[in-house]
Amino acid sequence: MPSNALRTLATCLVTVAALVLLGPSTTRADEGMWTFDNPPIEKLEKEYDFKPSQEWLDHLRLAAVRFNNGGSGSFVSGSGLVMTNHHVGFDCIQKLSSAEKDYVKQGFIAQSFDDEASCPDLELNVLMSMTDVTGRVQKATKGAKDEVEARKEEIARIEKECNDETGLRCNVITLYGGGQYMIYRYRKHTDVRLVFAPEQQIAFFGGDFDNFTYPRHDLDVALFRIYEKGKPFEPEHYLKWSKSGARDGELVFVVGNPGYSGRQLTVSQLEFLRDTQYPLRVEFYTSLLGELETYASLGKEQRRQSKKLIFALQNALKAYGGFLKGLQDEDLMAGKAKQEEEIKKAVKKDKKLKKEAESVWTDIAKAQKQHKKIAAARLVSGFRGSELYEIAENIVRLTAEKEKPNEKRLKEYRDTNIESLELQLFSDAPIYRDMEEVVIRVSLEEALRRLGKNDMLVMAALGSEKPADVAARVAQKTALVDPEKRRELVKGGRKAVEKSKDPLIKLALVLDPITRKLRKKYEKKVEGVEEKAGGIISKAWFAAYGKSIPPDATFTLRLAYGTVKGYEAEGTNVPWKTTFYGLYDRYHSFGGKQPYNLPATWKKKKDKFKMATPLDFVSTNDIIGGNSGSPVVNEAGEVVGLVFDGNIESLVWRFVYTDEKERCVSVHSSAIKRALYDVYDASHIGWELGRKGPKDAGEKKSKKKKSKKKKKSKKS
Amino acid sequence: MPSNALRTLATCLVTVAALVLLGPSTTRADEGMWTFDNPPIEKLEKEYDFKPSQEWLDHLRLAAVRFNNGGSGSFVSGSGLVMTNHHVGFDCIQKLSSAEKDYVKQGFIAQSFDDEASCPDLELNVLMSMTDVTGRVQKATKGAKDEVEARKEEIARIEKECNDETGLRCNVITLYGGGQYMIYRYRKHTDVRLVFAPEQQIAFFGGDFDNFTYPRHDLDVALFRIYEKGKPFEPEHYLKWSKSGARDGELVFVVGNPGYSGRQLTVSQLEFLRDTQYPLRVEFYTSLLGELETYASLGKEQRRQSKKLIFALQNALKAYGGFLKGLQDEDLMAGKAKQEEEIKKAVKKDKKLKKEAESVWTDIAKAQKQHKKIAAARLVSGFRGSELYEIAENIVRLTAEKEKPNEKRLKEYRDTNIESLELQLFSDAPIYRDMEEVVIRVSLEEALRRLGKNDMLVMAALGSEKPADVAARVAQKTALVDPEKRRELVKGGRKAVEKSKDPLIKLALVLDPITRKLRKKYEKKVEGVEEKAGGIISKAWFAAYGKSIPPDATFTLRLAYGTVKGYEAEGTNVPWKTTFYGLYDRYHSFGGKQPYNLPATWKKKKDKFKMATPLDFVSTNDIIGGNSGSPVVNEAGEVVGLVFDGNIESLVWRFVYTDEKERCVSVHSSAIKRALYDVYDASHIGWELGRKGPKDAGEKKSKKKKSKKKKKSKKS
Repeated sequence: MPSNALRTLATCLVTVAALVLLGPSTTRADEGMWTFDNPPIEKLEKEYDFKPSQEWLDHLRLAAVRFNNGGSGSFVSGSGLVMTNHHVGFDCIQKLSSAEKDYVKQGFIAQSFDDEASCPDLELNVLMSMTDVTGRVQKATKGAKDEVEARKEEIARIEKECNDETGLRCNVITLYGGGQYMIYRYRKHTDVRLVFAPEQQIAFFGGDFDNFTYPRHDLDVALFRIYEKGKPFEPEHYLKWSKSGARDGELVFVVGNPGYSGRQLTVSQLEFLRDTQYPLRVEFYTSLLGELETYASLGKEQRRQSKKLIFALQNALKAYGGFLKGLQDEDLMAGKAKQEEEIKKAVKKDKKLKKEAESVWTDIAKAQKQHKKIAAARLVSGFRGSELYEIAENIVRLTAEKEKPNEKRLKEYRDTNIESLELQLFSDAPIYRDMEEVVIRVSLEEALRRLGKNDMLVMAALGSEKPADVAARVAQKTALVDPEKRRELVKGGRKAVEKSKDPLIKLALVLDPITRKLRKKYEKKVEGVEEKAGGIISKAWFAAYGKSIPPDATFTLRLAYGTVKGYEAEGTNVPWKTTFYGLYDRYHSFGGKQPYNLPATWKKKKDKFKMATPLDFVSTNDIIGGNSGSPVVNEAGEVVGLVFDGNIESLVWRFVYTDEKERCVSVHSSAIKRALYDVYDASHIGWELGRKGPKDAGEKKSKKKKSKKKKKSKKS
Repeated sequence: MPSNALRTLATCLVTVAALVLLGPSTTRADEGMWTFDNPPIEKLEKEYDFKPSQEWLDHLRLAAVRFNNGGSGSFVSGSGLVMTNHHVGFDCIQKLSSAEKDYVKQGFIAQSFDDEASCPDLELNVLMSMTDVTGRVQKATKGAKDEVEARKEEIARIEKECNDETGLRCNVITLYGGGQYMIYRYRKHTDVRLVFAPEQQIAFFGGDFDNFTYPRHDLDVALFRIYEKGKPFEPEHYLKWSKSGARDGELVFVVGNPGYSGRQLTVSQLEFLRDTQYPLRVEFYTSLLGELETYASLGKEQRRQSKKLIFALQNALKAYGGFLKGLQDEDLMAGKAKQEEEIKKAVKKDKKLKKEAESVWTDIAKAQKQHKKIAAARLVSGFRGSELYEIAENIVRLTAEKEKPNEKRLKEYRDTNIESLELQLFSDAPIYRDMEEVVIRVSLEEALRRLGKNDMLVMAALGSEKPADVAARVAQKTALVDPEKRRELVKGGRKAVEKSKDPLIKLALVLDPITRKLRKKYEKKVEGVEEKAGGIISKAWFAAYGKSIPPDATFTLRLAYGTVKGYEAEGTNVPWKTTFYGLYDRYHSFGGKQPYNLPATWKKKKDKFKMATPLDFVSTNDIIGGNSGSPVVNEAGEVVGLVFDGNIESLVWRFVYTDEKERCVSVHSSAIKRALYDVYDASHIGWELGRKGPKDAGEKKSKKKKSKKKKKSKKS
């Protein structure tokens, strides 16, 4: 054994340089967020001596659930119990909460089916099947006058046909940046109820500081139940629970919906992100976060209201920090440039491809220049973080689009998507006018600052008023906080909307033509160019590195495989798992100060469970934002963990995969079970995990406990 | 509060770049390993509103103890109890151990004074006083034919005079690389006995991996007692024990003997270290370590024998890794170059200094070229790690040098040092022939490989034999493993030595003229030049940055001040302290695998103490190797901790001090006390800490306990 002393010579520099030496990312062992129609069977056989059957794959796919608000989940009982992260369920938990009953703070435990609380606007999807439609899409665009329009229309037609035929939610998915088109058919669930959520303090222990880091000590889990026609839904496929949970060195799989990765982006696209897009967003989000923190400091209720958005912004900022760190690394960019040269060389060897690809890299580079011109306007006109503005814009556009034939509409207003859209639009989740005022003001101020007072959009939005005045007026006076008013407007159609005196509707109306123009410009000069070129570039990738490359992430279902294993950092070993001991160490070593305080239950119950129980663990599975809530399963398809994060090093996975220090971070399945049994006295829920249903359906053990308790409290 | 998200943009690069931006290291708040004749009183008053009195300073100085084998310690009771690190005491603990009684593995607890075990060759020093002798040294060298010789002779005279006059160990110390000469007078203690050592497993939990890292979980402590005339020595000054121990944000002081720092080195000196010296050593130590690990793998006893040397090599290699990382950082070197330009500019403003300093930087650069030529030969001719060769060389040289007048001798054989030297030389600590054979062979192999078979030294050492044969012959056949044989030879004097047939003495004799020549060359062409130029360069530093710069470390007593505080790393917060919870987390999270196993006591006693007790902690005190075992004290001069390491980031302190992530790592005083009471049932020792003496001198509480236990075991 050579001494490990020399290993300490490895530095940040060396690590990143190593990325480059590894050559094209496609050669790395555990890389890949694979589609279920192209699973890495050969690689798994070769590298892990494991051959998944079609049955095994179908089972995982059908037990997986997509949270449409941006996360993943899975069926973990035959009675429709769905497991995800607390931070994925956060949206619903917050919407169910009020100043009086703050489930975010106190946690939530349903003692019976009746206790389970309906989420106002949560939609879950299950991927039932998929078919390649590349030929049809390409045929429709070939020789068309306006290729972008022709593609959009054909996609709309395919979705509509599928939707009519199957009744499922049908979406055409663009893979390989335009190299492949697939139709994905989803079963939709909208009656989703909260079953269990721990206190956010333990779900997000260490807060923004510990977010994207490891060693970690979070119980980032929440359980929901899907209902159909008022009864617990009984899925054909659900995941069993592993007895031991994840073990060191074990082959494990992550099934979920990674949101977005840019591993196949060209150098000019990466430069645009590095120099324009990310810095813009970081600045904007930092302003917004600052204002929200001021708002939160006004009082307890304001803090409660703004918690979700503050979390989202901090999370995004930390992620962008990591992405930028990657892109600002000269070695990483040099590696990407070298890779691009290799691909171009491979192209030159293929006569047909050579001709086809002649101008694609310069086309994409030109598109970036176009994008740069409109990036700031697109950002500020989105009123990011404002639920009210999103509602107003949706009402304005939905009523207008509905008058057009399906395939001519903006894609979110096509028939196949309207139901999901209306679930959001008519949600009775609470909206906080004061916080909305802050969020709208920030966008208006940023618009004025970035675009100048003579910009069309700014003039339209502000007129002669100041941003603060417009924000106050629209946020405080709009009637859209009431879902009934929204229904009325949508029912009244375009004419009713155009006649509306609602100040926020009026703002959305005046901005609509400007933002539509901006969108059109983006779709034609940027997205359209990238998608067309992307199709050719993906062929070039295949030419250079063979056919077995998984596509970049697209918030659709993927399978990632990897090994449970620790790594080396800061001069020493980072263990593959943490334990409850580590949680209490961190609590005490910061003197219990926020964000390292523990909920009262955890302080009280500390002698009630085995401290050595694994809490979180790491593995090399290739994941990215959107994978939050994905189950981690073993070869038997049993749950051994629950993905909730990547470590700080893994942020570079956005562009390059390596597994030296980069890791996927999960809650260990044992921690979930032990917490339910020993900390939360929720054995009725713990028992159900991985089983057909609760112990005595409807009549649960703990229900009795509860009534006993009630009796007790009456006595005392 | 601004979001901390953007902080994650900080990278290794930024951190090192920041060093440069900070300008000359002298401006940094907590920098400085200050001599006791020039304490940072103004800085402390200004920055911490704390004014140490002369009494306070004298008390700390006189309670501090230097471990002459390379560490620090302090009196922690009025009965001569001395606290240091386990790894500083390791040498004695290992020497007291045997295959039957392995105190390194099992730990050691003396139940009474009688149980305390005498260290065979440990010398401790207490700095009684010091006087500036710069004028005298400079006067003697001025205009001398051979300045180097003249300086050495004058220093020898000063030491001898002092020694004769005071009976103390007197050493002239070179500060500021030759800018100042001080005579330091030490009280010497050689009757040192082991009182307490925990199992190495807990003292060095995490082994080489966790060495130089934080968060950390080591109980790196050992307690010795000084005896004089067979009775516990009663020092006038000893440290009290703090009730609470170190607290977050507290001002604390480290009193100890930092070994070597190179903050005032010139760029050419740094380049020599980076390109020649360190790579040479890393290669050599890596070879030696590899061979020793092979030796250790032969069996349990071999592993035990080689533990100390393996530890030392791993430790050195990890440190060199950190130093090289610093020197290989272009920003750090650019900062150093910039600083050198600033100093040169300041020199130009002072006419006298300008003339004096005209050639010093080029002189030093030339000296580096000379050093480069002999660096490999100096390294391999040292037979590093071989106790036997060191003994043989000392016998050969001591007997020869004794015939010369004191001031003409090599410095380690001058009167003032002979007693200490003989303590080592005649030690009856065990020596392991087989391991010695390995160590000697590696040096011979390296000599052959690096210098070639026609090199004088190689020819002299090997003759017509192979390295392995020479090593086997000298290591297996020498009689020097017996201290009596050494005494005889020394007693017989030069002639007896020259006539000796001992193969190792013969080897040392044949190499002696060659290595003396090498040394002479080094002292004249490298050290002498550096020291002369160093004196002028230190004036230049004063000219550029004012007079209040502390000198580089020289393994003499220093005072460093700083704040107990955590930092940020790997994207999140690193707490100021760890707790026993963290120890058990790390044990379990690695499944108890070495080096993360716990001794049996710690497994058994885990419910016997408060898990939230602080274990280790970090502070910004400026320390470096040699400071190991230094007490950390609060403003009241009470022990709040025990320095045992720096984190991996702090290795750069060798050349530049910053306190962004760089930290001194200490055992918390509470952990020491709690472990003695609750884990080791050694309340008699725990009680004595910080007190005048044990509860009932001689008749201790735990002695009774012990006899009770004995009775019990008889019954069973």
